[in-house]
Amino acid sequence: PIDLRQISPRGEVEISRKKGEKRSKKDLAMIDERGYLMFAENRRSLLIVLQGIDASGKNGTTKHLAKGINPDGLQVHSFGVPSKLELDHDYLWRVHKVAPRRGNVAIFNRSHYEEVIVTKVEPKILEYQNLPLDTLHDPDLFEKRYRQINEFEKMLTENGTTILKLLLHISRDEQMERLRARLEDPRKHWKFNEEDLKKRSDWDQYMRTFEEVIAETSTSWAPWYIVPADRKWYRNLMVSDLVARTLEGLPMEFPEHPTAEETLRGMR
Amino acid sequence: PIDLRQISPRGEVEISRKKGEKRSKKDLAMIDERGYLMFAENRRSLLIVLQGIDASGKNGTTKHLAKGINPDGLQVHSFGVPSKLELDHDYLWRVHKVAPRRGNVAIFNRSHYEEVIVTKVEPKILEYQNLPLDTLHDPDLFEKRYRQINEFEKMLTENGTTILKLLLHISRDEQMERLRARLEDPRKHWKFNEEDLKKRSDWDQYMRTFEEVIAETSTSWAPWYIVPADRKWYRNLMVSDLVARTLEGLPMEFPEHPTAEETLRGMR
Repeated sequence: PIDLRQISPRGEVEISRKKGEKRSKKDLAMIDERGYLMFAENRRSLLIVLQGIDASGKNGTTKHLAKGINPDGLQVHSFGVPSKLELDHDYLWRVHKVAPRRGNVAIFNRSHYEEVIVTKVEPKILEYQNLPLDTLHDPDLFEKRYRQINEFEKMLTENGTTILKLLLHISRDEQMERLRARLEDPRKHWKFNEEDLKKRSDWDQYMRTFEEVIAETSTSWAPWYIVPADRKWYRNLMVSDLVARTLEGLPMEFPEHPTAEETLRGMR
Repeated sequence: PIDLRQISPRGEVEISRKKGEKRSKKDLAMIDERGYLMFAENRRSLLIVLQGIDASGKNGTTKHLAKGINPDGLQVHSFGVPSKLELDHDYLWRVHKVAPRRGNVAIFNRSHYEEVIVTKVEPKILEYQNLPLDTLHDPDLFEKRYRQINEFEKMLTENGTTILKLLLHISRDEQMERLRARLEDPRKHWKFNEEDLKKRSDWDQYMRTFEEVIAETSTSWAPWYIVPADRKWYRNLMVSDLVARTLEGLPMEFPEHPTAEETLRGMR
């Protein structure tokens, strides 16, 4: 059981911004190196799932990580309101379709977790999902989704995908600042959504739902990490550190060319 | 535990061909009617998985069922040798991508079951699947795949898809006749594959593998049916009967237009 109120959105590791940014750069270099090996080996993939309330920094985190990943081996997917075609399938369909290719990194900006977060806070959304009526009114609907998600992620990991799930954890005050900044800058108006204010008013409900979702879907094969995200440089450090350590820990090897020496001798 | 040797490939229901074909037609009419309702309701879908050794009649069965299904609501997918892009994902990826849309029927001519049937008889194929080495050499690889498949199918059914899995069961002699016919007719040469003869020589191994796969993956939510397939009309009867009864059993309702009467009065 998790209590987000007990976790500081500023972070508790004592480190200066300067040192933090330096370490972040080192992490990105490591990510680059290990990502190159993953691409060469072509057996494994990495999936990074970003969740968090509006303005928690999902885009910023993606931008930061992208600095350390060969764009040819990186796919970023944002999951917005499902299309008609997507609603005509199970909610994991659109997610599985863009699961990372071997050798690649995928970053999900929101994900299948929306289907247990937003729908839990606003159950009305379920009515647009075209579910059979017995499923729609199933009292165990969410328990089943938790199991479906856990098994789906288990299957992915058993077939070569490493999964990191990050909850970007910001304070209500910091969110206010960021939403205000969007309204104050005409270049950022497009990012502002009246819905965000509605969600802001449901703040506590969202926090309790995050806690439940993390408790139900943090597994040994696909753990959740709560990333203090009030300070962007600190968040970047935590995230790139986690990704670098994860890639470092994967047993990978460069494929050898079996007759490299001989072939070299034959090349004039 | 299943013993295919104990199951007659000719079938044991006493019925004449004439009566059988008449009943098949009735079934197709019922499939048409209930398929129309499923399409209108747009909440459920039907997935029919066809497996069976070469020349067991997967194409013929598909053709037969297609007579009773609105082509607009039917998708047929044949799963051949995986492409490079498909091999770069988990083996369920290409299958999930074409899972039936709500309101629709999908027929899979072969399926994800190839990944536990062919690979079990010819483990060498696993080496082409680009798996991480620890997965490739995992002694529980097949047990995990059985679980992955069962959970995948469970997720589909819990989200509105009804799944029927059919093993087309023919005798070794009947297969010989059909393969011979392919070679005797130049118009059917394209269907003949030297691989089929290799598989034919592994007949017993394939049968034991079918038995294991059925025992491991016949579930309450996605059962296997063994269809006696030596006689084509009999096979067609069994299959259309099963599909018709399944569609009949689904609780479906036509959506009503809430103001139909009023709107009718306003139309002149």
